[in-house]
Amino acid sequence: MRIGDVGEFPVIERMAEIVGRTRPDVAVGIGDDAAALDLGGEDLILLTVDSQVEGRHFVRDRTEPQLLGRRLLAVNASDIAAMGGRPTHAVVSVVLPPELELAWVEALCTGLALEADQLGIGVVGGNVARSGDGIVLDLALVGRVARGRLLTRGGAKVGDLVLVTGALGEAAAGLYLSEHPEVAEADREALLARHLAPTPRVAEGQLIAASGLATAMIDLSDGLAGDVAHVCDRSGVGVRIHAPSLPVSPGVERVAARMGKQRWELALFGGEDFELVFTVPPDAADGLAARVSAEAGTPASVVGEVLPAGAGRWLVLPDGHEVPLEPRGFTHF
Amino acid sequence: MRIGDVGEFPVIERMAEIVGRTRPDVAVGIGDDAAALDLGGEDLILLTVDSQVEGRHFVRDRTEPQLLGRRLLAVNASDIAAMGGRPTHAVVSVVLPPELELAWVEALCTGLALEADQLGIGVVGGNVARSGDGIVLDLALVGRVARGRLLTRGGAKVGDLVLVTGALGEAAAGLYLSEHPEVAEADREALLARHLAPTPRVAEGQLIAASGLATAMIDLSDGLAGDVAHVCDRSGVGVRIHAPSLPVSPGVERVAARMGKQRWELALFGGEDFELVFTVPPDAADGLAARVSAEAGTPASVVGEVLPAGAGRWLVLPDGHEVPLEPRGFTHF
Repeated sequence: MRIGDVGEFPVIERMAEIVGRTRPDVAVGIGDDAAALDLGGEDLILLTVDSQVEGRHFVRDRTEPQLLGRRLLAVNASDIAAMGGRPTHAVVSVVLPPELELAWVEALCTGLALEADQLGIGVVGGNVARSGDGIVLDLALVGRVARGRLLTRGGAKVGDLVLVTGALGEAAAGLYLSEHPEVAEADREALLARHLAPTPRVAEGQLIAASGLATAMIDLSDGLAGDVAHVCDRSGVGVRIHAPSLPVSPGVERVAARMGKQRWELALFGGEDFELVFTVPPDAADGLAARVSAEAGTPASVVGEVLPAGAGRWLVLPDGHEVPLEPRGFTHF
Repeated sequence: MRIGDVGEFPVIERMAEIVGRTRPDVAVGIGDDAAALDLGGEDLILLTVDSQVEGRHFVRDRTEPQLLGRRLLAVNASDIAAMGGRPTHAVVSVVLPPELELAWVEALCTGLALEADQLGIGVVGGNVARSGDGIVLDLALVGRVARGRLLTRGGAKVGDLVLVTGALGEAAAGLYLSEHPEVAEADREALLARHLAPTPRVAEGQLIAASGLATAMIDLSDGLAGDVAHVCDRSGVGVRIHAPSLPVSPGVERVAARMGKQRWELALFGGEDFELVFTVPPDAADGLAARVSAEAGTPASVVGEVLPAGAGRWLVLPDGHEVPLEPRGFTHF
């Protein structure tokens, strides 16, 4: 059986079966946005790794290396944010073809440094190796979270409401625009930026976790439908998502129409928005959403509710019909 | 200017110039075997990353994936060992072409799990992405070291002796044998194993650091000549290495003869032995070497002495002549 026939998630599951171990110094291991380690200090230490691969995540000639450097750090910071943590230190491994211009690497590092400075992260080490062909960038990021404040994918409770930060479908709309330069769109630059260099919701994640009100959290990399499915899997619950409640900007609505899709389709399946999805008991949801908006400047919206596992996973369409919520989003093979 | 014209170390230096920052929570940043972070606990937290790249570090059809999995973890554990640390947790990022067999990945993970179990390391997360072409494996490793026990490349003092663990040139001899299956060599299997799946000197590194006697340490990845040059650069010292003192096994001596090289050439320039080089004041050197041998079961040998920076870097040949010690070893471009 070949990797390409199996898909990304089964490969990850098989790897986890082989290498996974229960250890007293691991609070959260394989299967969440980041691992949470007990290394003896007051805080738990978070650890995550993510890659940017030429041909899969970016096309060399169509990508500003500076934006790519920002993105490389941002997607990892989003994983730390999803655990309620503060990202602190990164190491980066770059695999580069010999014909690549040094100036390209310098621009990549400039972007990395800009994003690191903005997020308060120190880049403390790295590794350079030659590739035969494409560029592969890996970044491992360390963070900290107070022991009582860790949020995982696994804590959602029946009756909780499902909330998201920001607006959805922006990255997918930006990707479409990057592939269709002929499309006139007033918000083109803003949507492209959301696709190329997403903003990790680091302050928001810490605020949500520190509130003590949320029960589970994940960041949006595969798309809301796929990432909510991860929360359902790990929490042992079902869910109902309301398509009309999904926060979508006018620009995304226009791009969706241009693509022949409904606005909620881009919001639900778009992927790579790097917003946060979190679950909150109903009596605390509005208050927490208001705090996120007031203190971090990012809106937060209720988009659904947590059901018992046996009740299934549903999507309420704008016409009121309920259809099964399929966890399709981006998969990597 | 292209990456391939510049070489690996200038690229790393340029990257470090752009992203490097001084921070109060970073005890050791870019430029050592691992970073050392102050994350509030009793111990410093060590962090390193290293890759195994198809075509650069291994040839797919000639490499057992299980050994490659061991190697991926071992080379990183060696970096933690070189700081005097105990490796604890790893995350792994694999970039895989779609035509790769799932069984290959399973064998890789089996090797990774075996090495992790042997070293007491937990593999706590990972990432899978598709590549257009080759396999790229990145592993980030976390470790711990007591604050007073950290060893860096930067502490060597004039008058210290230079010691190495184990025997040198084994990996280079193994590499040669892997490329020359026709060569009859009694130690073929042992030397191949040293090339394919090196043994990181984790217990030795902790013992050397905990003794409080050593002043600097580095692991041997580029070759003794190149790695000693790193210690000289960071410590601001010179060095004299004695070719006749370099520990070389009879098997390596035979392979060197077959290659038309002197035994000390393989020991000095071979690379990837993943032994430890450390510096110790002369009155403590024999005692520490004896302790490493007795407690960790690995011999340690005096191979040179630390000179003032102005005295230069020298190699004493078997005939007594001194020649400049050139830091050539493996470079990655």
